[in-house]
Amino acid sequence: MNLWLTEFQTDNLGLTARITETLFSGRSEFQDVAVVDSLEFGRMLVLDGVFQTSIFDEFVYHEMIAHVPLATHPNPKTVLVIGGGDGGTIREVVKHQSVELAEMVEIDGMVVDVCKQFLPEISAALIQKHPKLSLKIGDGIQHMKEAENKYDVIIVDCSDPIGPGEGLFTHAFYQDVHKALKEDGLFVQQTDSPLYHHPLIKRLTKDIRSLFPITRTYLAHIPIYPGGMHCFTIGSKQYDPLKVDAVTRSDFADNRYFNQEIFKSCFALPNFVKEFLK
Amino acid sequence: MNLWLTEFQTDNLGLTARITETLFSGRSEFQDVAVVDSLEFGRMLVLDGVFQTSIFDEFVYHEMIAHVPLATHPNPKTVLVIGGGDGGTIREVVKHQSVELAEMVEIDGMVVDVCKQFLPEISAALIQKHPKLSLKIGDGIQHMKEAENKYDVIIVDCSDPIGPGEGLFTHAFYQDVHKALKEDGLFVQQTDSPLYHHPLIKRLTKDIRSLFPITRTYLAHIPIYPGGMHCFTIGSKQYDPLKVDAVTRSDFADNRYFNQEIFKSCFALPNFVKEFLK
Repeated sequence: MNLWLTEFQTDNLGLTARITETLFSGRSEFQDVAVVDSLEFGRMLVLDGVFQTSIFDEFVYHEMIAHVPLATHPNPKTVLVIGGGDGGTIREVVKHQSVELAEMVEIDGMVVDVCKQFLPEISAALIQKHPKLSLKIGDGIQHMKEAENKYDVIIVDCSDPIGPGEGLFTHAFYQDVHKALKEDGLFVQQTDSPLYHHPLIKRLTKDIRSLFPITRTYLAHIPIYPGGMHCFTIGSKQYDPLKVDAVTRSDFADNRYFNQEIFKSCFALPNFVKEFLK
Repeated sequence: MNLWLTEFQTDNLGLTARITETLFSGRSEFQDVAVVDSLEFGRMLVLDGVFQTSIFDEFVYHEMIAHVPLATHPNPKTVLVIGGGDGGTIREVVKHQSVELAEMVEIDGMVVDVCKQFLPEISAALIQKHPKLSLKIGDGIQHMKEAENKYDVIIVDCSDPIGPGEGLFTHAFYQDVHKALKEDGLFVQQTDSPLYHHPLIKRLTKDIRSLFPITRTYLAHIPIYPGGMHCFTIGSKQYDPLKVDAVTRSDFADNRYFNQEIFKSCFALPNFVKEFLK
């Protein structure tokens, strides 16, 4: 069978991958959840038809969303991951020696269960119930409303701003994130593609800038995401990633993307990105 | 009509773009040549079914293949572009004040003619017959055999190493490039995707290292190329891009990608790339 799964990344652009098997396909309370085996990307998690992560490239996203903020904070002890149901981000967070508590609040329990079953390489820290980990199945937005002065670093590892991720890209949410952070805390969020989603990035950057004295944008190459060019945004109360000298703490032996030079260089933005972030 | 053009970037992966019109489709002596209008990428040049360049993203490739080597050489006067039939690279080369002669040797006259007709934004320097430009329709490999100690910078702006570009990825060709360069000359070549073509990149890097004391790899985000992560390789007899302090000469007001920080940061390689380049 000549089976192809196509994600329409925009109305006029698709990425299509040859599939050998559908391992899981179901509907949770929040979204369509699927796991497929592809020849190019290996096993993939697909939510509402959107490629979320794959064995082929998951290391880029997970290392970059975890190690960049955790290398910016000089001593992150209490870390929260909102979303990130596949477990890849928390797998990277718990590697950091300073981290004592790694909380995770994922809205969709089916994503966690399915990833533990079919993507154990990614969800390793969830499967082994890592001693630093505290997992809650629940609403990250609600969790943010209730937390105060609690976290050193918050990582918003969300899907696109349609469906369950929608409320995670609002000014109200960023206000709650600000409140939930300690007085020297910082947060990071995946903020989609600067090629295709710049109105979104422009708006959320403005929102974050209105709340955080230090707002920084960084980039990574993620082939399964639109254009392969992916954006992350940091809001920080005190620590500026551009002023961090050495981040050897995050140079884990098994890093496949992140290193010292990547940390320094990921904040270099092409002119067209600088332009819409003005 | 719901018309989509799919480039199969590998046997198991395709990028598909919605097309509104085919403006040109022909067969040259060397390859299939087509120009289409797409909704996502605007007008595109397609050779042998492979997306070559588009109005949407051409600035990334052309600025990065031209300004990085020309910013590395302190005083490039005589520059050769091999390939680059769309004219985008030469358009960037002639902007450099130091450049007195910009030669271009393109094997396929049909590509030049078609781009001048349908992609005038890209082929501007060809259309206006820029005073620095000398265009030859001919074989770049043969041209290299005949040139000696002539060029400050050579830019190999080729298509993939199948079809007419094949001979541009060989040790014999790099030997001729070395001979054609002045004693402090350097060259650059587009060298495909580190995600999908690493055996090729590994091999050609070894070849270039065997001839040039300084060999450097750099990256750019190019959404129409596989994975959006694209590689360029520099072979240099004397000047090391990692030791260049300021490249303000290349900070043209109309740059949309290249700037000082991009120049510094594009040489930062993820661990998985470093690994296969060892």
